[in-house]
Amino acid sequence: MTETRTSFAALAEDVGAIFERAGLVASQARALGRVIAAGERDACKSHGIYRIEGCLKTIAAGKVAAGAEPEVTGEDGAVVRVSAHGGFSVAAFEMGVPRLEARARAHGVAALVINDCVHFSALWPEIEALTERDLAALAMCPSYASVAPAGGAAPLLGTNPMAFGWPRAEAPPYVFDFATSVAARGEIELHRKAGKALPDGWAIDADGAPTTDPEAALAGAMLPFGAHKGSAISTMIELLAGVMIGDLTSPEALEAVGTTALAPRHGELILAFDPARLAGGRGDPLARAEVLFEAIQGQGARLPSQRRFRARAAAERDGIALGEEDVAMLARFRRDGLAALEG
Amino acid sequence: MTETRTSFAALAEDVGAIFERAGLVASQARALGRVIAAGERDACKSHGIYRIEGCLKTIAAGKVAAGAEPEVTGEDGAVVRVSAHGGFSVAAFEMGVPRLEARARAHGVAALVINDCVHFSALWPEIEALTERDLAALAMCPSYASVAPAGGAAPLLGTNPMAFGWPRAEAPPYVFDFATSVAARGEIELHRKAGKALPDGWAIDADGAPTTDPEAALAGAMLPFGAHKGSAISTMIELLAGVMIGDLTSPEALEAVGTTALAPRHGELILAFDPARLAGGRGDPLARAEVLFEAIQGQGARLPSQRRFRARAAAERDGIALGEEDVAMLARFRRDGLAALEG
Repeated sequence: MTETRTSFAALAEDVGAIFERAGLVASQARALGRVIAAGERDACKSHGIYRIEGCLKTIAAGKVAAGAEPEVTGEDGAVVRVSAHGGFSVAAFEMGVPRLEARARAHGVAALVINDCVHFSALWPEIEALTERDLAALAMCPSYASVAPAGGAAPLLGTNPMAFGWPRAEAPPYVFDFATSVAARGEIELHRKAGKALPDGWAIDADGAPTTDPEAALAGAMLPFGAHKGSAISTMIELLAGVMIGDLTSPEALEAVGTTALAPRHGELILAFDPARLAGGRGDPLARAEVLFEAIQGQGARLPSQRRFRARAAAERDGIALGEEDVAMLARFRRDGLAALEG
Repeated sequence: MTETRTSFAALAEDVGAIFERAGLVASQARALGRVIAAGERDACKSHGIYRIEGCLKTIAAGKVAAGAEPEVTGEDGAVVRVSAHGGFSVAAFEMGVPRLEARARAHGVAALVINDCVHFSALWPEIEALTERDLAALAMCPSYASVAPAGGAAPLLGTNPMAFGWPRAEAPPYVFDFATSVAARGEIELHRKAGKALPDGWAIDADGAPTTDPEAALAGAMLPFGAHKGSAISTMIELLAGVMIGDLTSPEALEAVGTTALAPRHGELILAFDPARLAGGRGDPLARAEVLFEAIQGQGARLPSQRRFRARAAAERDGIALGEEDVAMLARFRRDGLAALEG
């Protein structure tokens, strides 16, 4: 099989062009292009070019405001508020970043609220946009009702991702980004396709009983990670990044879109901290953090995201590898736009 | 056995008097009295009067600045900074609360940094002091190196508690407060005393191998909850509430005090959010949160802290029950001060 090598910039432009061709306004299309190219570059396949089709379907279904430009709707105290006006979240995030940075520098801690967005993106690209600016950051958002609270019997919470980042001068940042469910829905799908039983503790069936059958799990609910502790964190995310910011919770998001097959609509909360200010002259926080990272790695434990950073380094050196099918898919979507979805 | 009933106010005063008798300045002694009485009232025995002895030992060992008054050392932007100047954390927290509230109202989100404190307190009394003011709150702090990072082999992280609260108008607040280790050290001690094996996944031995032997676990390390996810959250707590606020991490705290038998010395980070401001007029966040709580309880799942709130309601109705031994212990400490530790 022939393999094509491309650069991050070229892939980002290519994917952006696909979305423009499909009717998305340039600001949204290009931001989406960058974040999908970043996923592909980092071998984070679940957020790479594989996701293009789902985004196009969301556009075709009229579930995203394709012509919407993001807008700063509030900037007050330590809070910046950007509305995506029904468009994809990424352009709204990009618009908010410099303002969030300015507020975090001015106040020590600040919050970026994104409202009315169709959410497509892992959270780590957002976290990294802030660690690049020497800020620590914590991001969270609801998703779709698909996870039962600990002790519960039916889908209510989302897979509610939570991500955190800490800047490092001489290494890629400390970044974690994970779902608060034990497993992602995609992993259950993979078990179903492979005809494999699920590990214990992943899911319950439609009657609320524990199950290892992927079909029964998909008809039932996933479970939160870490039992009641993960369930509590997921509930906190519904409260802070749903209710508190005046946007949809996971059950509301599912009701609004009516299916989990399209990108969900809700908001997002991103907190940014200026470590230099928070430390108040009590030591150099970036240098002190390195002592902790060395101690973790020194006992054989790994820092999160290292696989992703290794893939990135390889892609930056050798280019991003695309198979023949990938290249054909990109060409088809670029040529035919939404019409390619029918084929 | 005779049982004595007392009120929260009387018990708080009694415990405060014990600490004053032991040489603690009034501001620290009374704050400690209130928080210990709250633990006893809520049947949260691990933070009730059982803890008095440990606090007295910390005083006797000279590991707390008994005469220190807390001081506001910074108030700038969205950050309030209070130093306990080596005293117990609770008085410093109480001094910071009205300032944190004012900053959260002014800026939407604000942070309270407590530095140089000897940490004695569960985090939920602090969270509840903020939910009482209609703020949402997130608190975290390091502790002592006693938990191995996921994939690691030796103690490094603390049991690093994380607590969150959301205000409710017609019910006790939504509050969770948990260690980021699978189990608390005290639970491992209880298994040791009972001669019972630990559940799988709680701990590793001194060679880094999984163990269910409590003795081996106490000589080795505890494990974080939720595998790599809990480990990442615990690491985040070291970074945000240790390094970033210019205070000790868990390994540094252990090195500074030299034993896990005394209360640890480090800092704490408390974030407060004003939901009314964050919602920006997009719905009533407190009312919307009730819909979520009803849905959780409606499927048979429980909200956290309910056992504690039931115990509180009973104590408020019937008084706080103290056994003969408890009463004798309180009398002895009140009469003899630190000298009672010898007996």
